[in-house]
Amino acid sequence: MKFEIKQNILMEYLNYAIKGISNKNIIPILNCIKMELTNDGLYLLSTDNEIAIKAFIKKEDIENIEKCGDILISGKFIYEIVRKLPNSIICIEEVIDNKILITTDNSSFTLNCNNPMDFPDLELEDSKNPLKIGKKIFTNIIKQTSFATSTQESRPVLTGINFKINENILECTATDSYRLARKKIELNESYPEEINIIIPTKNLVELTRLYNVDDDNLEMHIFNNKVIFKFNNIILMSKLINGNFPDTSKLIPIEFENKLVANINDYFDAIDRASLLTSEEEKNIITMQIDGNNMIISSNIPEIGNVEEHLIINNKTNNNIKISFSSKYMMEAIKSLESEEIEILFNGEIKPIILKNPNNDDLIQLIVPIRTY
Amino acid sequence: MKFEIKQNILMEYLNYAIKGISNKNIIPILNCIKMELTNDGLYLLSTDNEIAIKAFIKKEDIENIEKCGDILISGKFIYEIVRKLPNSIICIEEVIDNKILITTDNSSFTLNCNNPMDFPDLELEDSKNPLKIGKKIFTNIIKQTSFATSTQESRPVLTGINFKINENILECTATDSYRLARKKIELNESYPEEINIIIPTKNLVELTRLYNVDDDNLEMHIFNNKVIFKFNNIILMSKLINGNFPDTSKLIPIEFENKLVANINDYFDAIDRASLLTSEEEKNIITMQIDGNNMIISSNIPEIGNVEEHLIINNKTNNNIKISFSSKYMMEAIKSLESEEIEILFNGEIKPIILKNPNNDDLIQLIVPIRTY
Repeated sequence: MKFEIKQNILMEYLNYAIKGISNKNIIPILNCIKMELTNDGLYLLSTDNEIAIKAFIKKEDIENIEKCGDILISGKFIYEIVRKLPNSIICIEEVIDNKILITTDNSSFTLNCNNPMDFPDLELEDSKNPLKIGKKIFTNIIKQTSFATSTQESRPVLTGINFKINENILECTATDSYRLARKKIELNESYPEEINIIIPTKNLVELTRLYNVDDDNLEMHIFNNKVIFKFNNIILMSKLINGNFPDTSKLIPIEFENKLVANINDYFDAIDRASLLTSEEEKNIITMQIDGNNMIISSNIPEIGNVEEHLIINNKTNNNIKISFSSKYMMEAIKSLESEEIEILFNGEIKPIILKNPNNDDLIQLIVPIRTY
Repeated sequence: MKFEIKQNILMEYLNYAIKGISNKNIIPILNCIKMELTNDGLYLLSTDNEIAIKAFIKKEDIENIEKCGDILISGKFIYEIVRKLPNSIICIEEVIDNKILITTDNSSFTLNCNNPMDFPDLELEDSKNPLKIGKKIFTNIIKQTSFATSTQESRPVLTGINFKINENILECTATDSYRLARKKIELNESYPEEINIIIPTKNLVELTRLYNVDDDNLEMHIFNNKVIFKFNNIILMSKLINGNFPDTSKLIPIEFENKLVANINDYFDAIDRASLLTSEEEKNIITMQIDGNNMIISSNIPEIGNVEEHLIINNKTNNNIKISFSSKYMMEAIKSLESEEIEILFNGEIKPIILKNPNNDDLIQLIVPIRTY
């Protein structure tokens, strides 16, 4: 194997490939990037067994392909070396004894390599029916739901986002059992079969960090045990989480005894300030009291002090009530809404609180209140 | 005590006062900010017993001073509360039972306070002969020497920067015994006595972070056991380190067998790349070989690989030699020099290496080489 390539081009694609490597991995092969040089171009592959990434540099972007071949090289070292080389032509060449020589005019690195045969077969084939979805829309789905995912490994299905497709409706749900985020979008085309899968949230977040948010589409290839995303010349594969995502369709009521509308920034700021006098051990609990069109948000830490925030709201049902919840969960839910006003809906002090844009049901945030008596 | 003040003004000065508080402090009083409200204005005081800060808000910058008095309040809470309040008028008022009430139109915080009598007397008096020094010059001194300070508490004197004043010459030296940084500057006026003190490096770094680097002067008030810095309406007091700083005046030779001049960026980049194949446990050792006007910088980690960097330099003494040193120390020393070229001076492979601007002796960096045989 021998080729020459501009530093900035190799760096651009190494930036993708390095994301497939976990620093915590103790299996040496999984700390490596596999380079496959063919007459079509150069493939960079990496995997940590949870995700796999394949980046492709077209032959037109390579200065000179002298000899095809495969090598398996420490991801960390090739990444750092190319990053620190000047923006000129780099020559990469396999030499005897499983060594690779990386040279520019003034620098010359020799690195020991592993046997490329030891790298796992990643099986990154296409599906028959790739789903096409705009990058902006996809990024939004992940931003608006991922925070509600559980971080506890004790219930693995809750560490992922549930993707359900029925005809042309995609519904994405995340929950840690104390709160839930659900986003519905309409697809441009109907999908030929019903889909109900759970994708690990951390892989989805990694994916959204990998691409530039432009007007292009993302391709999603769904299989029984994995999902493959494609964009530009990049492929990211994620395993799916086995198991059944809880049926949460009946959690969201249709009728509400309490319907409030507030300015979203004022409501957020009041909760943000009240949260200063809460403690994480006490679940950051704050109390919201409604008296006509007056809202009072209060909290306290007995040793430190207390706080009261006053807000004028629109109380549509005119019921007075006092309800307590986690300020952290509430702030994360509010941040996901992209509106000037927020609608706060609930049925008494022990039933779930629903938060949404008053003009739009696409995104629903649910928070379970905390009993204080 | 009762007064009203604009949020942005109080925030500006709390930003100073909060820096005097260490998060690690287990003495509750030292997590507090003392507010002293007089008819002249408001003083904010804080200390962690290593440094003390006093910030003064003039009465002209306060909306209304209704009742003078002192309070002692949790630094973290007053800081976070004021930070999150909107930019409007804040009223701060002492109420019964050692409580303080912080109010704006919509927010009302009650915080428990400590007894202001429990706060230590900081003794932040002026000296007879304050030394005046430009903020830019002072920041530069600290940047160019602080990194050479020892972080090991076993030799406390090496955790500070030695300030020596003789007439109108200020000499600042830091060393961890493996390297040394020395900066000399000429003061505008002679100082009336000889000074030889050690100021804790971390306090000096904190000080340079505290002020905006503008054309103004910093005042330095030197005492037997402390030093007080003044700028704008802010005072920072630092304890001095007891003990004698090692006499390093004879460490720097006058004659050199080896005199090299290199382009500073090329030299830095070559060492930066070579350092990729070094390990911290092995002191990041790299080897520099001189052969006429050719410099070869090399290093290796046997399991990983090796690197060679080639550089054309100006070998003024024409002696060929091989010398090894820490790439980390060398890069930190190079970064402190503000020149296009670097002069590298030494006497054989076991004597200290001197680094400086070829046109200027104000800043001297010294690195002890590492024997490799």
